[in-house]
Amino acid sequence: MSRPSHAEIMAGVERIVRDAAPLVDDHERREVFPEELVRRACALGLPDLVVGEPTCAEPTSLFCGAIERLATCWLALAESVHLQTLAACGLAEFGSEDLRARVLPKLATGDLIGANCLSEPPAGSDLSLIETAATRHGDAYVLNGVKSWVGHAGVAGLLNVYARTSNAGLGGITCFLVDAGADGVQVMPRVAKMGVRALPTAQIRFTDVAVPAVRVVGRVNRGMVVAQSFFIQGRLGIAACAVGLAQAAMRRAVTYARQRRQFSSEIMGFQGISFLLADMSVEIEAARQLLHRACRERDAGGPDTELLAAQAKLFATDTAMKVTTNAVQVLGAYGYTTDEPVERWMREAKLLQIIEGTNQIQRVAVASRLHKFTGEN
Amino acid sequence: MSRPSHAEIMAGVERIVRDAAPLVDDHERREVFPEELVRRACALGLPDLVVGEPTCAEPTSLFCGAIERLATCWLALAESVHLQTLAACGLAEFGSEDLRARVLPKLATGDLIGANCLSEPPAGSDLSLIETAATRHGDAYVLNGVKSWVGHAGVAGLLNVYARTSNAGLGGITCFLVDAGADGVQVMPRVAKMGVRALPTAQIRFTDVAVPAVRVVGRVNRGMVVAQSFFIQGRLGIAACAVGLAQAAMRRAVTYARQRRQFSSEIMGFQGISFLLADMSVEIEAARQLLHRACRERDAGGPDTELLAAQAKLFATDTAMKVTTNAVQVLGAYGYTTDEPVERWMREAKLLQIIEGTNQIQRVAVASRLHKFTGEN
Amino acid sequence: MSRPSHAEIMAGVERIVRDAAPLVDDHERREVFPEELVRRACALGLPDLVVGEPTCAEPTSLFCGAIERLATCWLALAESVHLQTLAACGLAEFGSEDLRARVLPKLATGDLIGANCLSEPPAGSDLSLIETAATRHGDAYVLNGVKSWVGHAGVAGLLNVYARTSNAGLGGITCFLVDAGADGVQVMPRVAKMGVRALPTAQIRFTDVAVPAVRVVGRVNRGMVVAQSFFIQGRLGIAACAVGLAQAAMRRAVTYARQRRQFSSEIMGFQGISFLLADMSVEIEAARQLLHRACRERDAGGPDTELLAAQAKLFATDTAMKVTTNAVQVLGAYGYTTDEPVERWMREAKLLQIIEGTNQIQRVAVASRLHKFTGEN
Amino acid sequence: MSRPSHAEIMAGVERIVRDAAPLVDDHERREVFPEELVRRACALGLPDLVVGEPTCAEPTSLFCGAIERLATCWLALAESVHLQTLAACGLAEFGSEDLRARVLPKLATGDLIGANCLSEPPAGSDLSLIETAATRHGDAYVLNGVKSWVGHAGVAGLLNVYARTSNAGLGGITCFLVDAGADGVQVMPRVAKMGVRALPTAQIRFTDVAVPAVRVVGRVNRGMVVAQSFFIQGRLGIAACAVGLAQAAMRRAVTYARQRRQFSSEIMGFQGISFLLADMSVEIEAARQLLHRACRERDAGGPDTELLAAQAKLFATDTAMKVTTNAVQVLGAYGYTTDEPVERWMREAKLLQIIEGTNQIQRVAVASRLHKFTGEN
Repeated sequence: MSRPSHAEIMAGVERIVRDAAPLVDDHERREVFPEELVRRACALGLPDLVVGEPTCAEPTSLFCGAIERLATCWLALAESVHLQTLAACGLAEFGSEDLRARVLPKLATGDLIGANCLSEPPAGSDLSLIETAATRHGDAYVLNGVKSWVGHAGVAGLLNVYARTSNAGLGGITCFLVDAGADGVQVMPRVAKMGVRALPTAQIRFTDVAVPAVRVVGRVNRGMVVAQSFFIQGRLGIAACAVGLAQAAMRRAVTYARQRRQFSSEIMGFQGISFLLADMSVEIEAARQLLHRACRERDAGGPDTELLAAQAKLFATDTAMKVTTNAVQVLGAYGYTTDEPVERWMREAKLLQIIEGTNQIQRVAVASRLHKFTGEN
Repeated sequence: MSRPSHAEIMAGVERIVRDAAPLVDDHERREVFPEELVRRACALGLPDLVVGEPTCAEPTSLFCGAIERLATCWLALAESVHLQTLAACGLAEFGSEDLRARVLPKLATGDLIGANCLSEPPAGSDLSLIETAATRHGDAYVLNGVKSWVGHAGVAGLLNVYARTSNAGLGGITCFLVDAGADGVQVMPRVAKMGVRALPTAQIRFTDVAVPAVRVVGRVNRGMVVAQSFFIQGRLGIAACAVGLAQAAMRRAVTYARQRRQFSSEIMGFQGISFLLADMSVEIEAARQLLHRACRERDAGGPDTELLAAQAKLFATDTAMKVTTNAVQVLGAYGYTTDEPVERWMREAKLLQIIEGTNQIQRVAVASRLHKFTGEN
Repeated sequence: MSRPSHAEIMAGVERIVRDAAPLVDDHERREVFPEELVRRACALGLPDLVVGEPTCAEPTSLFCGAIERLATCWLALAESVHLQTLAACGLAEFGSEDLRARVLPKLATGDLIGANCLSEPPAGSDLSLIETAATRHGDAYVLNGVKSWVGHAGVAGLLNVYARTSNAGLGGITCFLVDAGADGVQVMPRVAKMGVRALPTAQIRFTDVAVPAVRVVGRVNRGMVVAQSFFIQGRLGIAACAVGLAQAAMRRAVTYARQRRQFSSEIMGFQGISFLLADMSVEIEAARQLLHRACRERDAGGPDTELLAAQAKLFATDTAMKVTTNAVQVLGAYGYTTDEPVERWMREAKLLQIIEGTNQIQRVAVASRLHKFTGEN
Repeated sequence: MSRPSHAEIMAGVERIVRDAAPLVDDHERREVFPEELVRRACALGLPDLVVGEPTCAEPTSLFCGAIERLATCWLALAESVHLQTLAACGLAEFGSEDLRARVLPKLATGDLIGANCLSEPPAGSDLSLIETAATRHGDAYVLNGVKSWVGHAGVAGLLNVYARTSNAGLGGITCFLVDAGADGVQVMPRVAKMGVRALPTAQIRFTDVAVPAVRVVGRVNRGMVVAQSFFIQGRLGIAACAVGLAQAAMRRAVTYARQRRQFSSEIMGFQGISFLLADMSVEIEAARQLLHRACRERDAGGPDTELLAAQAKLFATDTAMKVTTNAVQVLGAYGYTTDEPVERWMREAKLLQIIEGTNQIQRVAVASRLHKFTGEN
């Protein structure tokens, strides 16, 4: 099958944005997952840019550019495509040939929605605390436990479940591909989040869920290796969401500041406003360039991919938080109402500082690589 | 009548907080105004500390301390008491003896809820753009226009309406005391706000509303003088709300950080968390001290009251925004859910940077007084 | 002897400032210690406010107000009076009656310049690493080692030397009162500092220095208790220096911004400048109020003295760094030259973030006391 | 003549850095201009990358990469090469064929040091205030006036002097190529700067200086067009200096933090330090990527060159100020002494926020281009 070109992908993204825009407010209010739009975005080939064979020079940059564009319109949509991609990463890199042949195409086209089940109530940043247990019984494993903060919970048909197969901390975790419809899989009520409500998040409880041993992804007890396959992509995708969100907020704030008049001038005429907007634009462009530097490093297989991905996630999401908060300020009382999207963007930005590794965890990751700067000149 | 002592007031506030705490989530979700609690807080003597005869050395400090305490529990409640107080300021200082005798006691006890109607859609920071017109007809004025962003809209029985009586810009505005039940007063649907939803905010439309000339507060065309009577109090009250909100957020974040364990330690054991919390505590205490400095200046009738009130409003609300945003971060994914109050506090904090003069307007006010620092020494 | 009143002290400080102002540039350039001015400031009764019997309600506030005023003119002078006071703290609280009678009056009047010798090259924030050794020989101890970063080195006649008398870490250090002229005391060349050059700082080497056992201050091996007697005062004094320095920088920047014209306006007319200045004024006032809150807590013997002193030091010095850096910016190219004092103030401010406990150490101190905020309402 | 390759240029830069490193402290202290090193850097072809015919795909990126590397070692050297390049810009673009043939090669090789004389005491950011007058007398102009803040003053042989030839504000200024040895050219004493002292800066006074009319660069009264030819390059070069300076400071701070031990750990083991360093690395990399984005836009002749150059200058220099200030903090008392280079870097960083358009002016430039973000999607 022929792959779409860069231009075709971006044009397809524009069509999706155009169709999505009128739905956002309604779907967010009613917490409706835009499954059809996610499917269309996947069918454009977005996940395939990350998990398929490379067909262009900088597939990660293209992917992140597309995610950024989706996020200017609707974070839940952008993040869903991102999650779908993450759900395919482990399988693509470590899955058996059979699993890959049967499952990957469906994930890539969005016919099957996927999810990663990693965190647990006590195991947030510290995955060594994972307690969900997988016990071998003949040709199958039996899973018991609770996974929390599962994006796509309730809409995903396929779950990557990271469960404990030995007591050896991070070295005792295994990744299982679980059918969401299997007996014993129970999706709990949605988490009520501050924002991004159209994207369902919930706990999933596993009670004596039987999983055939052939559905282990990667090797037993090496689940963290599988998980690491999507950690970098996770950071890049969230950074792209953040850049898009911040860009949308700046654009709205600039537009408003050029229309709103006070004291015989458009408020853009006051440096107290225009400098705030100028600083937004600077930080957004810096974040975007840092993100695309990280994407290029990844596409080139460079040694600084992890460092740059952590830097980009940290900087872009902190920027999005700051920019969206200030965008509400520029719109004043109007910005504080749901008649304007900036209040939603501010609520959404907060999520990005937390997921795919809190920004504190990103700092730990960056700090652990700083020794590279101490070499002689 | 004997006035309650400092200790009696603070004890009464504690009782109100105790009774209010279980109601917050439900009332905020259902957008129910806690009228009974507001009344109790007023009956304690809170508005009277500001608009009545001074009966203690530092009434403004005591008032702001009480507001701060209420805001640690429920911003809508604290802000409502604050608004009630503001609604009485102009009347107390400029009202006719008759109006003061008949209306002030009811406002002070909360038997009558009051509101100021000042902003209009085009007139936010720039009040010279006020268009609501009051035309003289015999012994009465007839009001026509739309007031926006009216706190207490729909629950207030008494409205201070600032309307145009001449074309002389800020010098052509007059304050009228309007019965909210009068013919032609129409409360529009509530504004859907990002937070503080238990406190109703809406536009009020005035269509041929007749107001007897004896209900002019202050002098005709001197309405801005009346308004200025509550501008300083407006800043102080919001600063107090901000300090309380930030304090609540820090307390929750510290408590969580001492309970949550990751990587074999309570997360308070990581400086990445504990330094964030330390900085919160520092900025909150600085904000509180700045606020109380402003309150003392006011109670002493000092010349720097306006400067200090603007400084306190600016610093306290910027602090609340920063602290609440970081408190969500400390709680991580938990903080992003409505199971925890920190997400609500973050949404609420944003309002405080906007109302009673945006923080940009506060900077203008501060900057206009900086020449005082250029004297010798 | 009658103690000077608050008004007398502040008037004396003004006279010192008036006489000091013309000397600053010359003395800083030639690195000349203003011994006479320090003596005059001491003779006013400044150290006595801290180490003497209290004769007014808020002696620490008065002391810090005086230091703040001196620092608006000359940080080296303010800090020297501060160091002189610190040098007397341990002695005043823990010295034998004989030592106190003979030495304290000379320190209080400035007839004798004192110094604390605490840090060593490896022992900066971590005093358990102190290696300077004191070995008992009959009625005397013999000291050997090197103390670093000694303020007043070369001008002090009296040294409080903290030396190791046992291997028990922080519990094995003893404070000795050493005559700076004693055999074996060698002041090394001055440290070349970025700023505050009129105040000499150097290493002091102790080689077989004999100290009579009666010159132990406090108890043997309990030197850290003695040191703690000046840690709180150390923080408060530096915070006062910081507030004064920042105030001077703001004043100069405001004055310049009202005189300098560009684009047909004084540059104060641009919010890009005036908002910067407004923010300076806000943070300085917040820092000042936080400092004086800490002083009042100390004067009242309150339980939060350590917390508040650490908060005040941290906030005031970070504020001074930010304000002075921005003051140079307001003056532009002029500010970058030595024709203007702002470049000196910026260099000086950096010292304050480092000494008397780096701001990182202050955050540790604050964080360790945050549990107080977790009590029930 | 064959042009050096990218690799040859960067190798040459490394050799210069190696030779320069031992000279920095001495030359900065004695204020000695490193003329020979500047000449070598020019002879490598650095100015030619900017003002010559393009011989590689991204000459501006290469130039800025070289400046960045020089600035990691010695800002005065990097800035001097930058100034030399700026001095050639106007001539290269607008000079007569004869002038270009005779002068450009000497500037490009560094045989002749050049300078721009633009600012005047009252004319800093606002060049319409230029008063230096050029009066036509036959075939020559006679110049009278004072230019301030001239980099390379005293070492430059060639001056681009912007003088007033009509009263039409910015439209009445003309650029003259003046021999520094001409009668009536008087270099005033060096300005004493906070840092970058090896690079001479001074006022130059012009008294009846005769300049042949053939030495007008560009058209009469169109000098601002000539000046604009180097404004963009001016921003990019300073941004490159800032990235290099910040990189050097981070590297030293990381190295120190891995060596210095306190509390039984290298201080890198404390997140209070390591997070500070991580944030440094993030902001530096973001600044670098933003700068190189601007360079690529320029090399491609893109429409956003001015916007991106202003963004890069603003962000990179603010980053350098923050990073160098924090690098001193990481080194603590050691960092405050001249034994360590970080205190010098902090002093130097401040210059970069001021020159080639203060960061306030950059914000004005950015703000004036924000409307580009308001187009439909």
